Amino acid sequence: MDIATRVAKPHEELADLLADELQAVNALIRRRMASEHAPRIPEVTAHLVEAGGKRLRPMLTLAAARLFEYDGDHHLRLAATVEFIHTATLLHDDVVDESAQRRGRPTANLLWDNKSSVLVGDYLFARSFQLMVETGSLRVLDILSNAAATIAEGEVLQMTAATDLGTDEGVYLQVVRGKTAALFSAATEVGGVISGASEQEVRALFDYGDALGIAFQIADDLLDYQGDAKTTGKNVGDDFRERKLTLPVIKAVAQATAEERAFWQRTIEKGQQAEGDLDHALALMEKYGTLEATRRDALGWAEKAKAALGALPDHPVRRILHELADYVVARLT
Amino acid sequence: MDIATRVAKPHEELADLLADELQAVNALIRRRMASEHAPRIPEVTAHLVEAGGKRLRPMLTLAAARLFEYDGDHHLRLAATVEFIHTATLLHDDVVDESAQRRGRPTANLLWDNKSSVLVGDYLFARSFQLMVETGSLRVLDILSNAAATIAEGEVLQMTAATDLGTDEGVYLQVVRGKTAALFSAATEVGGVISGASEQEVRALFDYGDALGIAFQIADDLLDYQGDAKTTGKNVGDDFRERKLTLPVIKAVAQATAEERAFWQRTIEKGQQAEGDLDHALALMEKYGTLEATRRDALGWAEKAKAALGALPDHPVRRILHELADYVVARLT
Repeated sequence: MDIATRVAKPHEELADLLADELQAVNALIRRRMASEHAPRIPEVTAHLVEAGGKRLRPMLTLAAARLFEYDGDHHLRLAATVEFIHTATLLHDDVVDESAQRRGRPTANLLWDNKSSVLVGDYLFARSFQLMVETGSLRVLDILSNAAATIAEGEVLQMTAATDLGTDEGVYLQVVRGKTAALFSAATEVGGVISGASEQEVRALFDYGDALGIAFQIADDLLDYQGDAKTTGKNVGDDFRERKLTLPVIKAVAQATAEERAFWQRTIEKGQQAEGDLDHALALMEKYGTLEATRRDALGWAEKAKAALGALPDHPVRRILHELADYVVARLT
Repeated sequence: MDIATRVAKPHEELADLLADELQAVNALIRRRMASEHAPRIPEVTAHLVEAGGKRLRPMLTLAAARLFEYDGDHHLRLAATVEFIHTATLLHDDVVDESAQRRGRPTANLLWDNKSSVLVGDYLFARSFQLMVETGSLRVLDILSNAAATIAEGEVLQMTAATDLGTDEGVYLQVVRGKTAALFSAATEVGGVISGASEQEVRALFDYGDALGIAFQIADDLLDYQGDAKTTGKNVGDDFRERKLTLPVIKAVAQATAEERAFWQRTIEKGQQAEGDLDHALALMEKYGTLEATRRDALGWAEKAKAALGALPDHPVRRILHELADYVVARLT
């Protein structure tokens, strides 16, 4: 990746601007991940917390605090909190997803990993909880406990709604808020609260995180059907094969003829898929223009995110957050 | 069960004394368990939260508050919090235990339950977190976040230590604190904190809950080897078959000859068990008197629990808590 490309990416610009604080957050994460009595814990989390990862969520907290020139250190604890919650969620998703994908053929290793994933995820939740209590802010605790409930409820809702053709755009939005937007909006909101931002500014930070998260997730779901495997790392149609009801399909189901509805029932609800079904699904989405409509929705949420920034202080960070909203949907052609 | 037996049980005496508050806690639990968007949640938790269950942990919180004649309503939230944490832990334990027991042969139903167990457990954790934040007490949040970390760490430690013959009594005690005593002691401690008890009294409440929980768990582990299946509902030797290193075995391993050590390595570490192995294990425990030594340990912790009560106000509840400590080890002959 050449330098010209690198500096153009807003999350990398943020990472440069917040480099010292990010380093402090990483050090805090490593310290709090450690367990005197259970060395398996950092073993399990290392590959998730240490390696790669854009640290997008903790950066949103640090960015919000920087917007208000916060000079304490509680934002570091909150950034680590947010990353711990994110990692715990990933660990528990692994259990849920792996169980479904390798149905009937688990290995001893898979089962051991399931145990580790559940218990180490719980450990990270508990650690995140300790970190946020240390800030001594009941307001922050209120926000993060509500976000935790929204996340958990969204996950359960996704499980039950995934293969149910009755799932409409309203339910989809609730799922997306749970799986992605709730943590984005909590991340930006607590960064403002801890910095003493006004009520109006805190609300704007919430709105920005919420809309950014929704745009991000809709883009992800759209790219599953039209992305380039080389850049997304996913194969086209993974969600279809895994029978996940995402926005492009929900929009097509809403307009389906009786015959088309039977197709969706067979392939998604019953999971009876044959060669050519993915192509037919794509043709139906093409027929009703649902990929294009989904793209417009994502762009609309990115616009909402940018609009929310208007209530925030004029600051270099605000410009980068503006670009970040464009960036999460820039992948959509 | 005749009335004479019923009134003799201290946890039932507590339940009578705290009947109104317990009813309020049950109503609160039902309200907070409900999910507008995800009806599957109460479905999964109902059999755990609604049916049976002695409500021992929430009663400990209510009892501690009654000791100090607390007249607010935060103790109800904390009692519900404690029960939610307990239920979430049970749900996650299900995943961990079922995976191991039915290794290699999961059913679709089992997998669906795994998903539900992980995600609904997370939901209950989040709900418990919201409830405790509502008390507005940072001290309470500090106690419960630390308990959550101890519980999670204990669970991970148990997973790695279970079949490791290097596990000594110190590690066993940490595991027991995590899986049982940490929630008992947090339950009694927060009941005192919310009622404005003195530092000395709060410490005594912690010590009582801690020792009671340890006595309770050691008794449970002992009854696995010498209990009556009719009263315990467990078969003798379940822990042996599941290769769980509990106190009676740990004490026998510590004194084992080279040949005996090889036996424990084969049956517990490697899990290669044959007919007659349980009898041999029991004979080794008999040889070193480890069942009797374990019983003495449990009785010792019950004595510690009762001694802690000395620092608490003279009150009918204190008498029942005293009897409760005797009761948890009274099953041991």
